[in-house]
Amino acid sequence: MARERQDIALAVSTVIFALRPHPETGLSAPWIPLVRRIAAPFESRWALPGGWVAPRESLEDAAARNLLETTALEPTYLEQLYAFGAVDRSPEERVVSVVYWALVRADQAQQSREGENVRWFPADDLPQLAFDHNVIVDYALWRLRTKVEYSRIARAFLGETFTLTELREVHEAVLQKPLDAANFRRQVESSGTLVPTDSVVTGGRHRPPRLYRYNETIELVDNGPLGHEKTGSTRVVS
Amino acid sequence: MARERQDIALAVSTVIFALRPHPETGLSAPWIPLVRRIAAPFESRWALPGGWVAPRESLEDAAARNLLETTALEPTYLEQLYAFGAVDRSPEERVVSVVYWALVRADQAQQSREGENVRWFPADDLPQLAFDHNVIVDYALWRLRTKVEYSRIARAFLGETFTLTELREVHEAVLQKPLDAANFRRQVESSGTLVPTDSVVTGGRHRPPRLYRYNETIELVDNGPLGHEKTGSTRVVS
Repeated sequence: MARERQDIALAVSTVIFALRPHPETGLSAPWIPLVRRIAAPFESRWALPGGWVAPRESLEDAAARNLLETTALEPTYLEQLYAFGAVDRSPEERVVSVVYWALVRADQAQQSREGENVRWFPADDLPQLAFDHNVIVDYALWRLRTKVEYSRIARAFLGETFTLTELREVHEAVLQKPLDAANFRRQVESSGTLVPTDSVVTGGRHRPPRLYRYNETIELVDNGPLGHEKTGSTRVVS
Repeated sequence: MARERQDIALAVSTVIFALRPHPETGLSAPWIPLVRRIAAPFESRWALPGGWVAPRESLEDAAARNLLETTALEPTYLEQLYAFGAVDRSPEERVVSVVYWALVRADQAQQSREGENVRWFPADDLPQLAFDHNVIVDYALWRLRTKVEYSRIARAFLGETFTLTELREVHEAVLQKPLDAANFRRQVESSGTLVPTDSVVTGGRHRPPRLYRYNETIELVDNGPLGHEKTGSTRVVS
């Protein structure tokens, strides 16, 4: 260990996922907003939105602010992803980036600010980004895909109630593969993670589909015990 | 976001778990080594081993070095836990700590350096620690308990092959509750996570128990895709 405190810069970046139709297939897929860099290093390359942490701001507040300033969005889900600290990840000085990942609904994403220097891209099909940001996005995608299977995070894309078809479509978009509808229904029903509500989708169909919500009484990983605590840690903003 | 880079100190700390008999119950339980602080702030309080990151050292290398210097141990498992960055977590200056967690086997822990200022404590029964270190240990315990159920990390306590009884005893020690032997065997066998080896425990018993190993061909979370990559990230040291 270093005996003396070292001069290492601390930044926060955020990977913000929304589900939107892929330009080629037309199928729903994860997209992220990127920011074009207007200064060295990596001038004119696309990068994750991010910046320095302010003196009186927790890491999570910095991530939320970062997101608001870049896209004018407030996330429905925000969680710390990982601290990236390889020695040479930034060419000019040592920078450690604490990266958050966030989920926003498609209708929110549509209202987001977009312009010459802020644009949404399909997360699976990105240009060469600044720094190690391609590695970071791949890791965030892996986390999203793993976590959708064992947590309640899908509701960040859906709202509190949803049909089984809507939930399956979120899983299909995140995993980028079709899922058998009957199998999906069986798995969800046997897992106990969902509770049927008394409501159905209105609109006069003969057999209107039922609305479900997540079961809050069972233990799922979600944000873990740090959620909602004042530790500069994870939270769900709803 | 801050427009200018701020002066925030970056530290690394490590929660190192070994399984040892609890002093009261005699049953195996998670223990961690702590270091007594010899300077302000929190002088004479116990704290997690940690220190500043050196200029040419990744976060993970800093954590591994930290561990070696404190306890003379090399971990069998080392993974980033979380970056703690609440504004007031250190009284004198702003410090963000990237925390790692590590697992070591009991026989390694017994060889570790211990003395007036380094001592092992049962992780569930700690004194008031310096900074937010009690919160950090509780979070690390939660991560350990969650992860033992859906990953191969138990082998860090066991080695590559083990009997079902040894594996159950690790789960019982981590979760701090007795598990029904027949149920445990059934769950493990139906999950497909273990593979029987051709070996049994030697020693002349009439029905020597079979040795198992983890199934490497199925996908489990473990360290995720960052393991073994040069991103200053997670790794398994074996």
